Amino acid sequence: MRKTAWPAAMLIGAAGKSPVVLVCEHASPFIPPEYEGLGLTDDARLSHAAWDIGALDVAKYLSARLDAPLVAGQISRMVYDCNRPLEAPDCIPARSEVFDIPGNTNLPAAEKQRRFDMVHVPFHNAVDAVIDQQMARADAPVLLVTIHSFTPIFHGERRMLDLGYLHDSNSKIANAAVQIEQDRGSYRAAINEPYAARDGVTYTLAKHGETRGLDNVMIEIRNDLIDTPTTAEVMADHIADTLDMVAAARKPLEIARP
Amino acid sequence: MRKTAWPAAMLIGAAGKSPVVLVCEHASPFIPPEYEGLGLTDDARLSHAAWDIGALDVAKYLSARLDAPLVAGQISRMVYDCNRPLEAPDCIPARSEVFDIPGNTNLPAAEKQRRFDMVHVPFHNAVDAVIDQQMARADAPVLLVTIHSFTPIFHGERRMLDLGYLHDSNSKIANAAVQIEQDRGSYRAAINEPYAARDGVTYTLAKHGETRGLDNVMIEIRNDLIDTPTTAEVMADHIADTLDMVAAARKPLEIARP
Repeated sequence: MRKTAWPAAMLIGAAGKSPVVLVCEHASPFIPPEYEGLGLTDDARLSHAAWDIGALDVAKYLSARLDAPLVAGQISRMVYDCNRPLEAPDCIPARSEVFDIPGNTNLPAAEKQRRFDMVHVPFHNAVDAVIDQQMARADAPVLLVTIHSFTPIFHGERRMLDLGYLHDSNSKIANAAVQIEQDRGSYRAAINEPYAARDGVTYTLAKHGETRGLDNVMIEIRNDLIDTPTTAEVMADHIADTLDMVAAARKPLEIARP
Repeated sequence: MRKTAWPAAMLIGAAGKSPVVLVCEHASPFIPPEYEGLGLTDDARLSHAAWDIGALDVAKYLSARLDAPLVAGQISRMVYDCNRPLEAPDCIPARSEVFDIPGNTNLPAAEKQRRFDMVHVPFHNAVDAVIDQQMARADAPVLLVTIHSFTPIFHGERRMLDLGYLHDSNSKIANAAVQIEQDRGSYRAAINEPYAARDGVTYTLAKHGETRGLDNVMIEIRNDLIDTPTTAEVMADHIADTLDMVAAARKPLEIARP
């Protein structure tokens, strides 16, 4: 099959006026057919290794609730992981937690570049464009929020964490959100769990948030809490409330600025 | 504001196995902020001139019901109309039914080309990619279906039509669908109404359907029948039933081919 140009980025609520910019890098398990499923079984192609189960549903509800634009990926992270630079060894993973990915083994540099150009470049151009827009439009400083999900069982261990708030070098929002979660008490929340910047997962935060001086946070949700549209909506409502409380706490600080 | 690269095509149900390929060119009223609303009022920017109200909801429900992939536009037809070639005088309209579009007046060729490259090229690449995929995957010949909506009041006249089935040179599907609608009797349906190929509205059908020898049809729905998610779902169910009946009628003909 000839290799062609699949569209990388879904745009939801682009007219939204919120200072929040939502990003969901791992929203889709779709593998373009020219990759022939990367040599995987059907189960593997729909597993957490291919996408963040439930994350797009949560992100869509958040977009509607907050009137916030959302950029979501349309191609599986197994083809190219939009939360990784081309230099990262796992930007096109040859091995996931539990299985090899035959179609990603020993790729020539030109094929890596092709995937980067088809997936990473337009995806991050879209994030850039939306951030530009909200910086010009919103009535408060832009807050970049990326939405992810994690698998309840990892290397045979059950994870008890419900929600993780992760940060790159700017920990302000993650710290505030975890404090609010602990006060609210509905979910077990922690900072920089089940992953952290050292695992290379804060690329999008650093690329768009840190380089522009924008507040930012990555939210990781255990996927068995959001694996139906109904439960995803419940979680989105919870997270929207937490983000509203974080925003309310931001304002006095901004007023106090010289 | 710097001009940047907004993503043109939304991909829904890309893993679908149906021979139906759904396209919704006018799914979004979104005007990238660098165009400063093309000089229009807020009302105009959300009117039928900017998008096909309700069409995306119908197309999404159809995608789910039929297990069919959908390519939908993410940028307003006022920026570039994906159902027009660059040669068409109305590919970037300077005047709609009821108002001028100041941001589209006297555009230099380079700006027209820029919009074509940003909107038309990736959108139609995505349609091409999805058709390639369904031709390889589906168990019947691909049927290209484009979903549009029309305004109930046009130049001061109330339109009584509910549904139009439009064709380019291959009238097979439109004829079959209108016959089925007349037998079913639920809606007032007609062929090549309220527009027809002579109005230049069958560009997508011709570009992807006729050139590949695929059956194709354009469906026009009066937008007051689909202006809420609930009514859009009712209409999608109705159209899915009609398309199922059309598909059932196609099969004997195919078996009879030499």
